[in-house]
Amino acid sequence: MLPQWTIEKKRDGAALAPEEIREFIAGFTTGAIPDYQMAALAMAIFFRGMTPVETAALTEAMMYSGDVLDTSVLTAPKIDKHSTGGIGDKVSLVLAPLVACCGVAVPMISGRGLGITGGTLDKLEAIPGYRTNLTTREFLDVVARCGCSIIGQTDRLAPADKKLYALRDVTGTVPSIPLITASIMSKKLAAGLDGLVLDVKCGRGAFMKERAAAAELAHSMVRVGRAMNKKMCAVLTAMDQPLGRTAGNALEIVETCEALQGRGPADLMEVTLVLGAKMLQLAGLANSCDTAQALLAEKLKSGEAWRKWLEMVQLHGGDVAALEDTARLSRAKFIEPLPAQQSGFVVQADAELIGKACLVLGAGRTKTTDAVDHAVGVSALLKIGERVERSQPLATLHANDAARLAEARSLMQSAFQISAQSVSEPPLLLEEITS
Amino acid sequence: MLPQWTIEKKRDGAALAPEEIREFIAGFTTGAIPDYQMAALAMAIFFRGMTPVETAALTEAMMYSGDVLDTSVLTAPKIDKHSTGGIGDKVSLVLAPLVACCGVAVPMISGRGLGITGGTLDKLEAIPGYRTNLTTREFLDVVARCGCSIIGQTDRLAPADKKLYALRDVTGTVPSIPLITASIMSKKLAAGLDGLVLDVKCGRGAFMKERAAAAELAHSMVRVGRAMNKKMCAVLTAMDQPLGRTAGNALEIVETCEALQGRGPADLMEVTLVLGAKMLQLAGLANSCDTAQALLAEKLKSGEAWRKWLEMVQLHGGDVAALEDTARLSRAKFIEPLPAQQSGFVVQADAELIGKACLVLGAGRTKTTDAVDHAVGVSALLKIGERVERSQPLATLHANDAARLAEARSLMQSAFQISAQSVSEPPLLLEEITS
Repeated sequence: MLPQWTIEKKRDGAALAPEEIREFIAGFTTGAIPDYQMAALAMAIFFRGMTPVETAALTEAMMYSGDVLDTSVLTAPKIDKHSTGGIGDKVSLVLAPLVACCGVAVPMISGRGLGITGGTLDKLEAIPGYRTNLTTREFLDVVARCGCSIIGQTDRLAPADKKLYALRDVTGTVPSIPLITASIMSKKLAAGLDGLVLDVKCGRGAFMKERAAAAELAHSMVRVGRAMNKKMCAVLTAMDQPLGRTAGNALEIVETCEALQGRGPADLMEVTLVLGAKMLQLAGLANSCDTAQALLAEKLKSGEAWRKWLEMVQLHGGDVAALEDTARLSRAKFIEPLPAQQSGFVVQADAELIGKACLVLGAGRTKTTDAVDHAVGVSALLKIGERVERSQPLATLHANDAARLAEARSLMQSAFQISAQSVSEPPLLLEEITS
Repeated sequence: MLPQWTIEKKRDGAALAPEEIREFIAGFTTGAIPDYQMAALAMAIFFRGMTPVETAALTEAMMYSGDVLDTSVLTAPKIDKHSTGGIGDKVSLVLAPLVACCGVAVPMISGRGLGITGGTLDKLEAIPGYRTNLTTREFLDVVARCGCSIIGQTDRLAPADKKLYALRDVTGTVPSIPLITASIMSKKLAAGLDGLVLDVKCGRGAFMKERAAAAELAHSMVRVGRAMNKKMCAVLTAMDQPLGRTAGNALEIVETCEALQGRGPADLMEVTLVLGAKMLQLAGLANSCDTAQALLAEKLKSGEAWRKWLEMVQLHGGDVAALEDTARLSRAKFIEPLPAQQSGFVVQADAELIGKACLVLGAGRTKTTDAVDHAVGVSALLKIGERVERSQPLATLHANDAARLAEARSLMQSAFQISAQSVSEPPLLLEEITS
């Protein structure tokens, strides 16, 4: 089978056989099939889509393009969570130690941020000494010892995805449900999981702006995971305003510490508990959502979750003292309030604009090679529905550069809308996707 | 403008600005824009199409990617003919000297065959000594001296097309009307023409099997040529059976010589005279089709066309003696008749299968690097509507290899269908496209 025959078949709307997909991805991984043929196929997939069987075959081909972790040494059920990404989303950091306390093993392989605020790894690296690049052996060892570990993707994990992702970025083939599905699922399942809970974000600050598209992606990922015999469920959550009251790497570590000590903001805790309950249920450790949530609440209250977090950080070489006294984390040069222009109720706190402000401040990256500034970002964000008085703060800005601060200030002002009329708090959990 | 923005714009169905197209093609030509981005754009164009304005901009960008001949030294109107290719199509060889006799300048840049029988250049190279690789100066000199010259594409002519054509071939992006239009027109118009007559083939032995697609391509090319201020017209002609009674390089040279001496087969002469009349009309050398055809018939009858052919071949270094005595052209080792299995009327002489038989014999190439065998092919082909008696020949096969002959014989048998019921000769001219 010549590669162009596979391209032509997809172009003309036929479903590819799993074997054809495997052969194409294998050739692309070794370089036998050049980038231009992969780019043409990706564009044909953008237009023609893929059936669930094709998407599963693509996911599997990409997953087996590299190492798949042998997690059989771990006796506990291995369940992970994946979020499609949003502003202020530090759920993974709270969730991993929290569910690990309940007997779930969480071998979490995370990404860095691109385009908006930093990713989970960037946040962890705001903790002095935290190593995100453990070897596979060290990673499994940490999970075995404390129940959870969060590291970065290695070169040997789903290399086909790494290559394809870079190619899609420059060939206009990013927004394709089957390609997104295979990219996420191949990486996640290469960690040797039993099950996966998906948090698909939807709204202004999310990759998926439309609810229908977010639901389609969630269904696609759940179907592919099931086809690969994994326990799966997905939740659609709103991402019109940031999650929690902080965005920025060290600032989010502070908020994570507060959350794990039982003092987290309501929206962050709501999402964390819903996703945590799903993880316990997939692990077979709770029969109902209520039981699961009660168990999780207990672990927060007792301080177990907090101690698990410290343990995990320590096993990664992180400075636990900086978590116990967060004033020791890196701190920005300029810290100033963003005053409200009028009194009233917050009716909009645009996650996309707040994300852009953080990017301008240096909390995220526009190119993969950019360095992030851990200290900068925003904190004390007011939430939609909250009241503010004129000249009182809507948020606090943290900057290391005066010019960047000025630009971020203006973006932040346009992100907030204040109205005399109160609005109710918007729903956070939009939909559960079980099939 | 990043290249991926252009790709995304086309992917999402918007029309690209001429400047965006120029920039993309210029980048692709120098290599600044890599093949994978061009492949993704080509696939997006396959799905989204292009407006006439975009197609003209693409054609112009590809044409100006290399040299455009300065034909201002030629005082006669410069008119060429292009055919989309078919089995036994030797019209260019008859037409160029014929219309040159009437005062048209024909600077014809032709291609080699790929996939079926040889192209015009391969046929010319069956004449010992004929040089298809004249320099630009020699080429214009031959046209100035005898009114016509047929050579091959140089590296400096539309290099963007050369690169894109090779890429399309392996990325499933060949069958796209705007891409085909730009490929043909950029090369043809780079020869510095005033006008162009298009012969768009349609049927079993043509690239365009469907009449609607052939008409669409013809319209697209006529529109683009007009947008570039060229005199244009197109004719759709049938390609269900071969044109003339021969297919194969030296065999077609023999038939060309017969045609130029007034002894050509009816179908070949019909197409030649129609296209020739169009050329004279575009050149402003005849007011009506009848006047033009009468003039052309006179040039055949008087022997002028034949002498012009000999003159052109001689100016290219070709052996004129081999045209005056075609027994001197290369001759196959095995020459055998293909007997009819039953008596009756020929109702099918499948051009595609006859083309495949010629390919098997070695008259064409499957890869651009293959060498062609000038001697092999088929001659004395019976035409649809003609009567044959059992065991009498349907055609004569010319082969240099016994195994290939056996395979070709079987393909030829399946190409012909004989019926007791007579059928009328199918129409050859399907449609004239003037806009």
